[in-house]
Amino acid sequence: MTRVQVQLGERSYSIDIGDGSLSSAGGVLTSLGAGHRCAVVTDANVGPLYAGVVTGSLEGAGFAVETVTVPAGERSKSVEQLARLWNAFVALDLDRDSTVVALGGGVVGDLAGFAAATYMRGIRCVQIPTTMLACVDSSVGGKTAIDLDAGKNLVGAFHQPAAVLIDPATLRTLPKRQLAAGLAEVIKYGVIMDAPFFERLERDIEALLALKSDVTVEAIGRCCELKARVTSADERESGLRAILNYGHTVGHALEAASGYEGLLHGEAVALGMLAAGRVAEALGMTGPDVTSRQEALLARAGLPTSLPMPHRDAGGVLDVMRHDKKSRGGKITMVLAVRIGEVKVVRDVKPELAAKALETLRGG
Amino acid sequence: MTRVQVQLGERSYSIDIGDGSLSSAGGVLTSLGAGHRCAVVTDANVGPLYAGVVTGSLEGAGFAVETVTVPAGERSKSVEQLARLWNAFVALDLDRDSTVVALGGGVVGDLAGFAAATYMRGIRCVQIPTTMLACVDSSVGGKTAIDLDAGKNLVGAFHQPAAVLIDPATLRTLPKRQLAAGLAEVIKYGVIMDAPFFERLERDIEALLALKSDVTVEAIGRCCELKARVTSADERESGLRAILNYGHTVGHALEAASGYEGLLHGEAVALGMLAAGRVAEALGMTGPDVTSRQEALLARAGLPTSLPMPHRDAGGVLDVMRHDKKSRGGKITMVLAVRIGEVKVVRDVKPELAAKALETLRGG
Repeated sequence: MTRVQVQLGERSYSIDIGDGSLSSAGGVLTSLGAGHRCAVVTDANVGPLYAGVVTGSLEGAGFAVETVTVPAGERSKSVEQLARLWNAFVALDLDRDSTVVALGGGVVGDLAGFAAATYMRGIRCVQIPTTMLACVDSSVGGKTAIDLDAGKNLVGAFHQPAAVLIDPATLRTLPKRQLAAGLAEVIKYGVIMDAPFFERLERDIEALLALKSDVTVEAIGRCCELKARVTSADERESGLRAILNYGHTVGHALEAASGYEGLLHGEAVALGMLAAGRVAEALGMTGPDVTSRQEALLARAGLPTSLPMPHRDAGGVLDVMRHDKKSRGGKITMVLAVRIGEVKVVRDVKPELAAKALETLRGG
Repeated sequence: MTRVQVQLGERSYSIDIGDGSLSSAGGVLTSLGAGHRCAVVTDANVGPLYAGVVTGSLEGAGFAVETVTVPAGERSKSVEQLARLWNAFVALDLDRDSTVVALGGGVVGDLAGFAAATYMRGIRCVQIPTTMLACVDSSVGGKTAIDLDAGKNLVGAFHQPAAVLIDPATLRTLPKRQLAAGLAEVIKYGVIMDAPFFERLERDIEALLALKSDVTVEAIGRCCELKARVTSADERESGLRAILNYGHTVGHALEAASGYEGLLHGEAVALGMLAAGRVAEALGMTGPDVTSRQEALLARAGLPTSLPMPHRDAGGVLDVMRHDKKSRGGKITMVLAVRIGEVKVVRDVKPELAAKALETLRGG
């Protein structure tokens, strides 16, 4: 078992990564001093595969466990499902010592995490991510959220998990497309803060796609370490943490403009990274090598490198960007690469530049 | 203008109390360095009386202001109104620098505060309470919440206001019953931590009921100081802050059992304080003087001292208490007075004792 420690004072927590670690869920809750009751929140895809192992482990450790299942997919990050969880927690008699266990991908982690953050003004949440994206991104760092009709993640809370438990074996049941989408975020960490890691990915990306065990544990561990480092330095996203949004300004806008259909989050981020590369080039911040190395690695990971959506007015995407919660005063803020391994936040990118970058990504 | 400072490190804030202070709302936001946009959230009772002064002041200081009005009453602390506010904030283009101004009683403060706490994972909220209860209790301390069908305040967040602005002149339009209900919390502060203040209330309660200006500003200021002291020492209700719940375990249960109708929050707290007094007597923690002085002062403030609800099984009220979010492991926790000015938290009160105390409160 590999352990990554996230240092946040009294909100510090551990991330345990290891094949078969699902069955140590009970031990994790015991070591946290968790109260008797817990609710495992999962979705209709993940529940049938893994909820049994997790609840078995929790029951074996003496906890009273109930499972709450939400529909699979981004649409569950809704006010309706949030209210459903809150009411379920009441019905299950969860109190302030109880634990919410979020078992699933980013949707389950964000939704259950936000429900836990706000139920009784905040109860313990343990994240057990089962997608590559959730393992390396959403389960670590304490950001929880739901979507509104107007956009993704518009409502949420900072609520650090009490622990994160990652079992890479769960990734083997992921559709390949989902796995590839998660690798976009893995590659992102290399671009924003770790050139040697990016180089290792250039060497190992096929082994990672095949989920070769040692490569997978190492890559996930490294991403968690990097995210933990950023999160510890900037828990509430006032500065440094913004670099994690590399590829996300354009990415979120693409997702929103496509109605969250057609593009997976990681695919949108991959395209956002490419757009960011071209904006950085246009601003003279970097040469074409960043764009080309990014593009080559993303392509090898099975990610789209051109816009697969039907022709549409880029202005619509820009409108969404202006409403992105990271926008300030209506200006577009983008994270842009100086070189592989280093980025900076640029607060006033001209909308025309982003529009032009999007144009170059539109498939033939 | 009287100023009370709440010391919470980077979340410190000021409470300004003074007749006519509504018209300094613009200055307060300017001094906070607030962004251009703000939303004034108010209710259908308060809005027509005071929203004009507040928005005028904000516009005069250069802010772009829109008013969002919710129905008056506890039922607005709902998932539906919460979602409505979130969507309104998007429609108004509120971003992370924007401000939510909560203008109204506890319902508006709790609802708008929670919406601000969670919109974009937390934006600035300025509280302008317009009921006695909100002035001395809910606007200070950072607790925000909505209700679920199963109980009050089951969902919420700790989100400190950026500032609190109290204009006692607004209290003159309060129905006398609402004013009296707020005085229950004022009296509570005396019982839990300030015997000399309790004695001043024994002298001045009629002047306070008549809203005599100096007495009112002084009493509100003292309550804010006391609450600020408790909040600063225990922001997230892990220990000391529990004393503020004096009268609330039974009070909340009475409100829930009456379907939040028939009893105002402060009236329920008054009855809860009397029940707590009798439980403390039964446990031999205190003599009958605490109960009798409480009862006399509450009665002079125009508060009920016997249960005005129809005869019903006290077991139902107890069930609600067991589900109160302050319960741990199903036991009933009560704050009980040792003497006027000092209370302690008792974690395992026998349900029968609370039931018996309730019996003695049932009117003839």
